[in-house]
Amino acid sequence: MAIELTPTTEARRVADATRELVRARILPLEQEHDGDVAAAGGDAFRVHIQQLARDAGVFAPHAPVEYGGLGMDMRDRAPVFEEAGYSVFGPLAMNIAAPDEGNIHMLAHIASADQKERYLAPLCRGEVRSAFAMTEPAPGAGADPAALAATAERVPGGWRIDGAKHFITGADGAGFFIVMARTSGTAGDLGGATMFLAPADADGIRVGRHIPTIDRSMVGGHCELTFDGLRLPDDAVLGEVDEGYRYAQVRLGPARMTHVMRWLGSARRAHDIALGYSAERRLFGQRLGDLGMAQKMIADNEIDIAATRALLLTACAELDAGDLGTTATSIAKVYGAEAVHRVIDRSIQLCGGMGVSADLPLARLLSEVRPFRIYDGPSEVHRWSIAKRAVRRAARAREEVRNREDPRTGEKVSR
Amino acid sequence: MAIELTPTTEARRVADATRELVRARILPLEQEHDGDVAAAGGDAFRVHIQQLARDAGVFAPHAPVEYGGLGMDMRDRAPVFEEAGYSVFGPLAMNIAAPDEGNIHMLAHIASADQKERYLAPLCRGEVRSAFAMTEPAPGAGADPAALAATAERVPGGWRIDGAKHFITGADGAGFFIVMARTSGTAGDLGGATMFLAPADADGIRVGRHIPTIDRSMVGGHCELTFDGLRLPDDAVLGEVDEGYRYAQVRLGPARMTHVMRWLGSARRAHDIALGYSAERRLFGQRLGDLGMAQKMIADNEIDIAATRALLLTACAELDAGDLGTTATSIAKVYGAEAVHRVIDRSIQLCGGMGVSADLPLARLLSEVRPFRIYDGPSEVHRWSIAKRAVRRAARAREEVRNREDPRTGEKVSR
Amino acid sequence: MAIELTPTTEARRVADATRELVRARILPLEQEHDGDVAAAGGDAFRVHIQQLARDAGVFAPHAPVEYGGLGMDMRDRAPVFEEAGYSVFGPLAMNIAAPDEGNIHMLAHIASADQKERYLAPLCRGEVRSAFAMTEPAPGAGADPAALAATAERVPGGWRIDGAKHFITGADGAGFFIVMARTSGTAGDLGGATMFLAPADADGIRVGRHIPTIDRSMVGGHCELTFDGLRLPDDAVLGEVDEGYRYAQVRLGPARMTHVMRWLGSARRAHDIALGYSAERRLFGQRLGDLGMAQKMIADNEIDIAATRALLLTACAELDAGDLGTTATSIAKVYGAEAVHRVIDRSIQLCGGMGVSADLPLARLLSEVRPFRIYDGPSEVHRWSIAKRAVRRAARAREEVRNREDPRTGEKVSR
Amino acid sequence: MAIELTPTTEARRVADATRELVRARILPLEQEHDGDVAAAGGDAFRVHIQQLARDAGVFAPHAPVEYGGLGMDMRDRAPVFEEAGYSVFGPLAMNIAAPDEGNIHMLAHIASADQKERYLAPLCRGEVRSAFAMTEPAPGAGADPAALAATAERVPGGWRIDGAKHFITGADGAGFFIVMARTSGTAGDLGGATMFLAPADADGIRVGRHIPTIDRSMVGGHCELTFDGLRLPDDAVLGEVDEGYRYAQVRLGPARMTHVMRWLGSARRAHDIALGYSAERRLFGQRLGDLGMAQKMIADNEIDIAATRALLLTACAELDAGDLGTTATSIAKVYGAEAVHRVIDRSIQLCGGMGVSADLPLARLLSEVRPFRIYDGPSEVHRWSIAKRAVRRAARAREEVRNREDPRTGEKVSR
Repeated sequence: MAIELTPTTEARRVADATRELVRARILPLEQEHDGDVAAAGGDAFRVHIQQLARDAGVFAPHAPVEYGGLGMDMRDRAPVFEEAGYSVFGPLAMNIAAPDEGNIHMLAHIASADQKERYLAPLCRGEVRSAFAMTEPAPGAGADPAALAATAERVPGGWRIDGAKHFITGADGAGFFIVMARTSGTAGDLGGATMFLAPADADGIRVGRHIPTIDRSMVGGHCELTFDGLRLPDDAVLGEVDEGYRYAQVRLGPARMTHVMRWLGSARRAHDIALGYSAERRLFGQRLGDLGMAQKMIADNEIDIAATRALLLTACAELDAGDLGTTATSIAKVYGAEAVHRVIDRSIQLCGGMGVSADLPLARLLSEVRPFRIYDGPSEVHRWSIAKRAVRRAARAREEVRNREDPRTGEKVSR
Repeated sequence: MAIELTPTTEARRVADATRELVRARILPLEQEHDGDVAAAGGDAFRVHIQQLARDAGVFAPHAPVEYGGLGMDMRDRAPVFEEAGYSVFGPLAMNIAAPDEGNIHMLAHIASADQKERYLAPLCRGEVRSAFAMTEPAPGAGADPAALAATAERVPGGWRIDGAKHFITGADGAGFFIVMARTSGTAGDLGGATMFLAPADADGIRVGRHIPTIDRSMVGGHCELTFDGLRLPDDAVLGEVDEGYRYAQVRLGPARMTHVMRWLGSARRAHDIALGYSAERRLFGQRLGDLGMAQKMIADNEIDIAATRALLLTACAELDAGDLGTTATSIAKVYGAEAVHRVIDRSIQLCGGMGVSADLPLARLLSEVRPFRIYDGPSEVHRWSIAKRAVRRAARAREEVRNREDPRTGEKVSR
Repeated sequence: MAIELTPTTEARRVADATRELVRARILPLEQEHDGDVAAAGGDAFRVHIQQLARDAGVFAPHAPVEYGGLGMDMRDRAPVFEEAGYSVFGPLAMNIAAPDEGNIHMLAHIASADQKERYLAPLCRGEVRSAFAMTEPAPGAGADPAALAATAERVPGGWRIDGAKHFITGADGAGFFIVMARTSGTAGDLGGATMFLAPADADGIRVGRHIPTIDRSMVGGHCELTFDGLRLPDDAVLGEVDEGYRYAQVRLGPARMTHVMRWLGSARRAHDIALGYSAERRLFGQRLGDLGMAQKMIADNEIDIAATRALLLTACAELDAGDLGTTATSIAKVYGAEAVHRVIDRSIQLCGGMGVSADLPLARLLSEVRPFRIYDGPSEVHRWSIAKRAVRRAARAREEVRNREDPRTGEKVSR
Repeated sequence: MAIELTPTTEARRVADATRELVRARILPLEQEHDGDVAAAGGDAFRVHIQQLARDAGVFAPHAPVEYGGLGMDMRDRAPVFEEAGYSVFGPLAMNIAAPDEGNIHMLAHIASADQKERYLAPLCRGEVRSAFAMTEPAPGAGADPAALAATAERVPGGWRIDGAKHFITGADGAGFFIVMARTSGTAGDLGGATMFLAPADADGIRVGRHIPTIDRSMVGGHCELTFDGLRLPDDAVLGEVDEGYRYAQVRLGPARMTHVMRWLGSARRAHDIALGYSAERRLFGQRLGDLGMAQKMIADNEIDIAATRALLLTACAELDAGDLGTTATSIAKVYGAEAVHRVIDRSIQLCGGMGVSADLPLARLLSEVRPFRIYDGPSEVHRWSIAKRAVRRAARAREEVRNREDPRTGEKVSR
């Protein structure tokens, strides 16, 4: 299992083309619309910029080749997505924005041939958008998935789904939903969950208000969503009944990592802006970039970026090797989400008054990344799961020592 | 020199009345207008809410009694301004928002009787607003005041002022400006600066665009401003010619502290919201507020709030005793600006998805306080000045040891 | 309730005399013995340096006047103890080292007249030392006092005490012990504890090994201790039966604060050394103290010292007012213990290779203060208790809102 | 350029054998002698434990095969050295302790065939030790190499070397020295330096006192050293005259990384101890490892260890590819040195009172790693150099943009 520090030729080519596309075409659009995708035109704007990416040959780099994608593995995606993330509109242009990117990844792994044809193919081609309907208002599923409250009951001919969701990214305007609902047990115990594919125009789906959040780069908002007697046929089940939590893991690990890739691009952009400013701005008779406290911030940015990238590549290698990468992706997610926030915050500080003005995009980038310490599992939940696994490992090791038989006597060793 | 931990009776009375006013009348208005003072109506809104404060008997607590204020010293202001800051509109209502509050403080100390009558009196009564025109675009005065580029030259009958300013808070709609301009030396060396009082309708003053920043609670924006052949009579000089840097210190120390008081109110509000959420929200079968990592954030909030308040009161006692309080106010400003930011950031984290939504005011409060680590001297400049004084003190102490004569021989002690 | 930033005349006089004593007489002895009290002679050394403090008129500033002390309150102690702590041997010289200092404080509050005559009087005079026997080896009382395992049972004529203690500071050579033992309930529930006074030569007390720790300034070590059928008469009970936990609070709050005072002296000393070094050492063509990253560390030291002092004085004012000061002392303890560690660590870093050598006392000071983040309640336990109280307060406030009757209808307000 | 996350078969074999050796044979010896190599017997002890490593087939894994080593590249060394570092005596046993390990690396790259035979060969075999004499007392070479004060002058038949060095690790008992002396320019400007090989018994070399530092695992101490008229022949020059600074880079990059590898082993050990404790110790009715604040510390340890390892492997891949790896090794060094310190500090905190006692090796490990934030370039110097390169890169990029000719007009683009 190796990490290519020098990306493969193909990855390099696509990353370079992405870089060119983003800087020449996408960044000017981002500046023009101040990073606000709704103000830029929402889905019409999406269609426009996705064509730019198609023309540049970098559309859907992660999608299966049979659906028009480039079929890249996680490690190859890393440099490409990072270049895309240099603009907050870059991922959308390339059809690698959340949640579609993660949904494509998951459907490619789990969907049946028919489901792929019906849902995955148009999604890969950018003909529709999708949403992943898992998170629920309190006291439902959020940081704690076991609290899942939405239910799916068997009814003649299929299933009936009821429940409320919120913070469903991209829901407004999505062509279909992947719905997570409880099929056994009750809220609070883990029980079993199942994923369903539901066309957006089905009866019983109501997209509610956009929850106003501080990020503005995602088409279709973060919405409230209600399922009220939604009927779905049996072939709407994605994979197997009661296997939803397991599939969620298939989606969540890689989705976390592609988030990190994209935000790393944002962090690098903020850092580049601060570096450029530090190289020119003079005060106290010196270049800003030659003042010790500025140098400390610059160096810490470089360290944070390097460490994020190194942890990211490590986790990607595990995922490509077929592991769930649970600990490695949690580590890269926690570190990455906190590091990109620090990098942008320091970049603001370096640019002084300009840093908090809209004359530079820094404050806006900070608003884009702040939620990432919460979305996809708050830092605290990932730390909890990292620690739980470490303690369990230690407890097991101690147990083994205790249970080891003395080779001479055949008796258990006491401590 | 004492700190009253239990505020004086008068301070307690005004703080309590302020608390009542802010919670009953001002917070609902803040919620209604989402903390955006321009959207709320700008100066018309100001006039409306200032009447509420007058009716509550808490208007202009810092202004001299002869101009209708309550004449409070710095220590008494602390609990009152903190209660006012609980809403981002509270200080405006009470006429203690930046920059008027600091201008009132400075004019009360420095202005002539005539100047007080003409400028200070209507300012205390809330009839006009004012602005403090010091900061300049690069490479002019900013973190480094010695870079001051705007000039005032003597001309027959007075002065002619030329130069560009930016980030001038409250400039749009101000009744008058306090202008800082160079009267000796050249940009880059310290030389001498002078302060002038200029009515806003004088020829040669042009208020430019509002620099779009992430805070939205200040009437009149943060503006660009140009002086182009502005003519002012001799009696427009505030205090003495060439004493501008010294007067700036008179203004800046207290102004820093009142900033800390107000933002401390914001931090406490964010913390209260997070506490309320933590006391109700349940996950993983427990109350959020009973989970260890949440408790750590809550405790760190309490510590940051307590330390900010303690440092603030210490600095206020020095100021009330007539000191410039240079080190004490720098320490309280650096610590306070960073601490209130941490408190609000942790409060967001505690509230999860809700924390980054506009359903709670937390993200908006974060945007209000983030600039404070830059405004009024970036943290780095304050740290630099704190360190410079400490090293100078140490160098002097070493020098004294070296120069001390040996009492027996009368010779200098060598190291 | 006021904090005197300018200490009272008496406090200033004693602090100045302490400063003179410590710098002229105690620091040279500390240097000579490399801060190792055992190597310096243990109790014989203590007797010697306590005479120096008596001669200087600064002995036992905290002890009641009737027992030869200066009867200072907590606020007056602060500047005096800080000066004493400038040398790790200073507190011992002045009879204000842990645990005797805290024991004097508690006995003055709780002991009967007879107990005072027998135990407190000689302790104040420095004729004997004492130890406070509370902490137990796992799974007994430590961070969690409710785990108290040592028991005291009523027997004819008094009590019988059994149990193991560890980390009992000063146990070796102590003249008497204050013993905490369970008198109702069982380990794990809180139940009731009682404090007993036991002469060190009583049958059934066995002082075990000195647990080797990284600090070396405390006479009598941190020992293991066993009570095995220790018989004590009824008048050995300190205060009331089953009130031990409450008395422990009486001792712990002030004892925490005097710890902070003393370690603050150590931090200031480390900072002074680093400042002196920074003022002289030149590298990269500049004075070390003029390099930005060094200035950042210096400023952060100043901030940490100022904040510790401000929080400390706040907590002392509460204690002097008769409060238990539970939250205020926890805040000052957590902040102070972490801050003094940071200050000394930065001082080491500023001095480079010299900082980790024994040519400067910095590394040794770091070893002295590191345990303070654990002793007297680990930072985590204090944070837990700070948070618990804050959440309880918030829960109660919510409850009140819910229970408030609508004034018009007399009905409970629903949320 | 790839990083093998799964080490090569050979690296795995050697790492496993190292692990077995260290846990079965070396750790018990470390415990017995409390990690004090001098107390354990110094060089005699070294000879003893090096035989254990030879017997285990893991001796000198980094040394060239022709001199009996295993010829491993940097990436393969990483897992092996980390296992060695699990005990502070492990690296010594395997002949991969500083400074010999770095000296072997450098001599293999730079020495002439004769020099290799005379110096490198016996060093690889563990027959002698060596020292690297570069660092000087103030105001000489330290963090700032340009301050180099020791001089080498040409004299008939060779060179004469004079100057003082300090903190020369392993000097006492070394068989030879690599001496860095100025051969052109003067102290304060960079000028030129040359490296010389000097047998320890040459006239004019005086090994002075061991500077007492807080680490105790290195044979031969950190010594003061004086060259007083040391005469060396021409063939004592290592490489070319005036190329010393360049060679120092050849040594320093890899030496930094092997330091990180070894200390990472120490950090992992501390973490394992804390995990074991957390898995067993119960308080407040729960397992310590199930308390949220403990989980936070445990997770942060896991993150710090993972990030250190990822940054380390990245830098090693650059070095193996023939780069100097200046930025990558600085980043890995700064992050690694600070991270291992944090990991051990948290491990102490998790273990409470036990953590600061000598019953666990944690406090001692902390003392071993604390100097690493200073040795091999203080964190501040590495940050300064990371930032300087980043700003230079940004300045150059801006310059290029400015100098770019407009393709249509042939004129320079103005900003």
